[in-house]
Amino acid sequence: MPMMKAAVFVEPGRIVLDDKPIPDVGPLDALVRVTTTTICGTDVHILKGEYPVARGLTIGHEPVGVIEKLGSAVKGYREGQRVIAGAITPSGWSNACQCGFCAQDGAGTAQGWKPLGGWRFGNTIDGCQAEYVLVPDAMFNLAPVPDGLSDEQVLMCPDIMSTGFAGAESAKIRIGDSVAVFAQGPIGLCATAGAKLSGASLVIGVDRVPERLEMARRLGADVVIDFSRQDPVQEILRLTGGRGVDASIEALGTQGTFEAALRCLRPGGTLSSLGVYSTDLKIPLDAFAAGLGDHRIVTSLCPGGKERMRRLMAVIEAGRVDLGAMVTHRFRLDDIEAAYELFSHQRDGVLKVAITP
Amino acid sequence: MPMMKAAVFVEPGRIVLDDKPIPDVGPLDALVRVTTTTICGTDVHILKGEYPVARGLTIGHEPVGVIEKLGSAVKGYREGQRVIAGAITPSGWSNACQCGFCAQDGAGTAQGWKPLGGWRFGNTIDGCQAEYVLVPDAMFNLAPVPDGLSDEQVLMCPDIMSTGFAGAESAKIRIGDSVAVFAQGPIGLCATAGAKLSGASLVIGVDRVPERLEMARRLGADVVIDFSRQDPVQEILRLTGGRGVDASIEALGTQGTFEAALRCLRPGGTLSSLGVYSTDLKIPLDAFAAGLGDHRIVTSLCPGGKERMRRLMAVIEAGRVDLGAMVTHRFRLDDIEAAYELFSHQRDGVLKVAITP
Amino acid sequence: MPMMKAAVFVEPGRIVLDDKPIPDVGPLDALVRVTTTTICGTDVHILKGEYPVARGLTIGHEPVGVIEKLGSAVKGYREGQRVIAGAITPSGWSNACQCGFCAQDGAGTAQGWKPLGGWRFGNTIDGCQAEYVLVPDAMFNLAPVPDGLSDEQVLMCPDIMSTGFAGAESAKIRIGDSVAVFAQGPIGLCATAGAKLSGASLVIGVDRVPERLEMARRLGADVVIDFSRQDPVQEILRLTGGRGVDASIEALGTQGTFEAALRCLRPGGTLSSLGVYSTDLKIPLDAFAAGLGDHRIVTSLCPGGKERMRRLMAVIEAGRVDLGAMVTHRFRLDDIEAAYELFSHQRDGVLKVAITP
Amino acid sequence: MPMMKAAVFVEPGRIVLDDKPIPDVGPLDALVRVTTTTICGTDVHILKGEYPVARGLTIGHEPVGVIEKLGSAVKGYREGQRVIAGAITPSGWSNACQCGFCAQDGAGTAQGWKPLGGWRFGNTIDGCQAEYVLVPDAMFNLAPVPDGLSDEQVLMCPDIMSTGFAGAESAKIRIGDSVAVFAQGPIGLCATAGAKLSGASLVIGVDRVPERLEMARRLGADVVIDFSRQDPVQEILRLTGGRGVDASIEALGTQGTFEAALRCLRPGGTLSSLGVYSTDLKIPLDAFAAGLGDHRIVTSLCPGGKERMRRLMAVIEAGRVDLGAMVTHRFRLDDIEAAYELFSHQRDGVLKVAITP
Repeated sequence: MPMMKAAVFVEPGRIVLDDKPIPDVGPLDALVRVTTTTICGTDVHILKGEYPVARGLTIGHEPVGVIEKLGSAVKGYREGQRVIAGAITPSGWSNACQCGFCAQDGAGTAQGWKPLGGWRFGNTIDGCQAEYVLVPDAMFNLAPVPDGLSDEQVLMCPDIMSTGFAGAESAKIRIGDSVAVFAQGPIGLCATAGAKLSGASLVIGVDRVPERLEMARRLGADVVIDFSRQDPVQEILRLTGGRGVDASIEALGTQGTFEAALRCLRPGGTLSSLGVYSTDLKIPLDAFAAGLGDHRIVTSLCPGGKERMRRLMAVIEAGRVDLGAMVTHRFRLDDIEAAYELFSHQRDGVLKVAITP
Repeated sequence: MPMMKAAVFVEPGRIVLDDKPIPDVGPLDALVRVTTTTICGTDVHILKGEYPVARGLTIGHEPVGVIEKLGSAVKGYREGQRVIAGAITPSGWSNACQCGFCAQDGAGTAQGWKPLGGWRFGNTIDGCQAEYVLVPDAMFNLAPVPDGLSDEQVLMCPDIMSTGFAGAESAKIRIGDSVAVFAQGPIGLCATAGAKLSGASLVIGVDRVPERLEMARRLGADVVIDFSRQDPVQEILRLTGGRGVDASIEALGTQGTFEAALRCLRPGGTLSSLGVYSTDLKIPLDAFAAGLGDHRIVTSLCPGGKERMRRLMAVIEAGRVDLGAMVTHRFRLDDIEAAYELFSHQRDGVLKVAITP
Repeated sequence: MPMMKAAVFVEPGRIVLDDKPIPDVGPLDALVRVTTTTICGTDVHILKGEYPVARGLTIGHEPVGVIEKLGSAVKGYREGQRVIAGAITPSGWSNACQCGFCAQDGAGTAQGWKPLGGWRFGNTIDGCQAEYVLVPDAMFNLAPVPDGLSDEQVLMCPDIMSTGFAGAESAKIRIGDSVAVFAQGPIGLCATAGAKLSGASLVIGVDRVPERLEMARRLGADVVIDFSRQDPVQEILRLTGGRGVDASIEALGTQGTFEAALRCLRPGGTLSSLGVYSTDLKIPLDAFAAGLGDHRIVTSLCPGGKERMRRLMAVIEAGRVDLGAMVTHRFRLDDIEAAYELFSHQRDGVLKVAITP
Repeated sequence: MPMMKAAVFVEPGRIVLDDKPIPDVGPLDALVRVTTTTICGTDVHILKGEYPVARGLTIGHEPVGVIEKLGSAVKGYREGQRVIAGAITPSGWSNACQCGFCAQDGAGTAQGWKPLGGWRFGNTIDGCQAEYVLVPDAMFNLAPVPDGLSDEQVLMCPDIMSTGFAGAESAKIRIGDSVAVFAQGPIGLCATAGAKLSGASLVIGVDRVPERLEMARRLGADVVIDFSRQDPVQEILRLTGGRGVDASIEALGTQGTFEAALRCLRPGGTLSSLGVYSTDLKIPLDAFAAGLGDHRIVTSLCPGGKERMRRLMAVIEAGRVDLGAMVTHRFRLDDIEAAYELFSHQRDGVLKVAITP
């Protein structure tokens, strides 16, 4: 039985590199040899035991690689082809998918809906921090990488870019809108880029880490606010002449950012939430105009599927945004434990790491 | 100076019938002789001092009447014409109005947005529980009543029907959707009717008052749930085979109904909120899928304007819904203090009262 | 090799009942024993040679039946289950499907888009006017029939109802809209029902056959216009006080109905086109306000997929509409040639026929 | 009676500079002293007699100026303020306006809708190729110019930019879309800029004038096609791998561009039409997939109103696009006849002229 290296969840606090068998390929699967992958904030939640997964599971949901072997029923691809797959790998055929909610894919359930059901890599099936990953429902999920794009250029597509851009898309940003983005970690930075790309005429990035604020400027923020020096809500109101922004994007997952994102909205504005929360949320009565402000609060989980990946890579290929600059550190798969160490403690100005098996 | 009778807010706990001068008519105004009006739950909040208004203000925001006098610049109407105006009477020209948020009309403010700014009657200007009411921006707000419709048939259009239907519209109900409506007071009943009218194939009404549940059935509920006998969330999940409803409408304004409306949603579902809340709201982490469920929470304030009124009256004229049945009690304006007494204590199965000067 | 009866296209003018082998079942397929099917106007186009298909192809795209055998990879169904499938049976995984255009499914093409590609039954693969039909991509397409619904009650779901309702949906009908539907054949009648179900307050049905106008009234038309007696455009303008309708639906596929549907629109109105045209279309300059009228012309091909079918059956189950009344004639599969004879000549007031193997 | 200079339509072929009285200011009006204006292609249609207007009318609908005098009922502005108004100056209160179709403003009509009714300047009331222009419904229409923006920087906002951007907006461009824009005159160039600003990853500009193709590249086209050298439909299909573009924008108003814009679409694509047509249009059957391709054809008339102007100026202020470069020639109002001579013959590479009284 041929074996491979894989980063495996052992118990809270321990993800280790281990040997696992290279998986068998079912009729609708594709086996992909991973050439580059990365670590996500969600993986750190798993490491810390804050998000429970099965012991022994391979972690990671952002694969760039090469098709090693195609399932017997998979058509339209060839072995040796460079591909990516989304962090979310839906079946494509559930009722949820048919309603446009692929991330809530309920394939196999009675009604066809399951919260977060489309997220399988490193959650319910083995992920891609490994030498090989099995991509389910390959014809729905495998997107060929255009020639001329490097692994690192497309490494953000599977999750960070798809999620961040979804924050802007769900906010239904119109040309000329003003938008505030709370937190400029990898997802917030992509939301910032997505807001600008959607036609916003004022994009405001909020964080406190200078490198992140600087990166926010590079990716599209017209103004940045260091919340450790200024009250962001007051500053946003000032910047908009007292009106508030048309849309705000929450990209951290805390009560503070959620509440600030609500308070800086104009009446009728949209709060687009991307963060993974770990506590109940409070909606303050005054910020909510007692329910009479025509507010909208929308949440988005990372959209997946090959068409999504194709579009995101087209954006990169056209030079609309350069997310490769977000890769601040590089590790071999053999050193992934060190990568987790660095990334989970946010040391050395890390934004994203590239892991190469 | 000609005088009229008007129901005036004196202090918390006291709305009294008093004499006031019939107002002068500015160039864009219309003076309307009120033939029928009603009392709203919001008026009861005012009475109780829970929603502050100026002492001496005439209360009421649901006018049916006859044009007595037109402002010098008002064209397209004639004196003697039967009309209604919405509870919300926007200017039509503010930035908020031009963005489609007439209820947040900021006419006169620096940026053109103001929370709840479109609500003027009985809030920032004299209302219509009086013999006469001055309708501002008459050309935006006055809608002629079609021949053949009685006062009571159109009495719900200005507020209750416009608000309740907005709950269904903001939920973006599609043909074949399942919808739960929490609370079957006047607004919830209209939301129930609006959900059915929007093509929902399963409309579930939740309340505990038998008369209201019975009225819910008449107006479009396929199933009603008495929440004092059954847990509505569990019952809704059962009715939908475990999936949850596509949309839920909150029509009361409490943590309990808000939370239940969230818990009974499928992933990707929409909570459309109409209630006026009086406390901070809590979003439970589990009901919100930690922010990853593609949920939407939208709030709506009563849409106003003559085109809205025209459309609602067209719905009534076509026989699509009969809201006249919601008028359970009738009073003379002279007896309005008794009407408040009955309505504010929800005595005698009251749904809506008709007040005739 | 077990054999079955099937209605086969031989050459223009000839569809005959013939013997064919019962097909083998691939891993993603389901073999369905047809219990009821019908003939569509499109089948008549095929019969007449106006729409080309391969000789020897089994015709028909509206199956109601029972699962006889499931492919090896198909989960979530059981043999013996009553099901329908849409006329359009998309793969679910093409780029077109992932963009929400399942009817233009380009599974297997380089870019993933193909005009009409989702329509396979009786077009590119054997159809269902037969004892058995092989349903491709079964997990995407098979929808269980709710207990209590008869074959004839759901017989319109696969095509007629899905298409007609799509005409109303694509028109984005809002509560209180006025809508005109041109032609009250089976699809137009469903569009009429769909328009009412979407909240239109004035639904106008246009045709000249008295039985069809009568059926239009039963299914939701408030007013019917016999175009052989009245100019429909003038009458619609009169009914709307000179404004025109908010939306019009074309359900025949001729220049005359297309043009009338455009002429009766208000500025900013939507022409929702369902017809299959056989000639170039002309947009008259005046009817189009020289391109400055904010008009929209949208076309829709029948939406497919199991979720669509589930929703349509839910509408029927809830009693919102009764399309079973459209079945005017019944035939055994053995007599399908007579059924074609009747249906293709529109004899005897036929609307839809039920064919039972 | 104080007099002013104004460019007046005399008869087909003759627009002359003449003396007219400075108009009186009604209660809702504002008198604006024009500091810069321009000539539009529509004005050339008027000059040639192809679009009829009253003899003696002042032409021009793109004003930049300074408030000279405010009507008695106008609040929120001050005399001396720099402002623009849209080419379309709606009332704000008609039923059409309340439905979001301000360009079809039917103020004063029985039903409240009138094709092109929002276009008043230089069409139904005196326009702005004059020393002074009277702006109707000033509170709806006057937008203050931000400090730091020059007249020429905002000169495109009233018409060209608003119209061109509307072409992109009506096409509902999503991040990653491919878009083709047919004709790169001033409106087409703005549509090109608008498409890029909306997130398109491939913007294709089609024209044959080298200067226009060069300007298209500057404003956002990734690829330009000289249709005199290449068949644009074939080239667009090649560029999209055979799929066709997600959206195409027609910005000329001819059968040729309309048809090409349809032929280069993928199934389910949107043709967004901006051109003013002068003949009936033909929709070829094959390009329209016989009505079964899920195509959308949408037309847009220039959106107006102060909020629209505010947003467009915000886009310019943020540096998202520089349309000032489109001003290729400058004239004094005294020389406007020479400006018409140049502009109407498209001499000397003219794109837009700036006229200063």
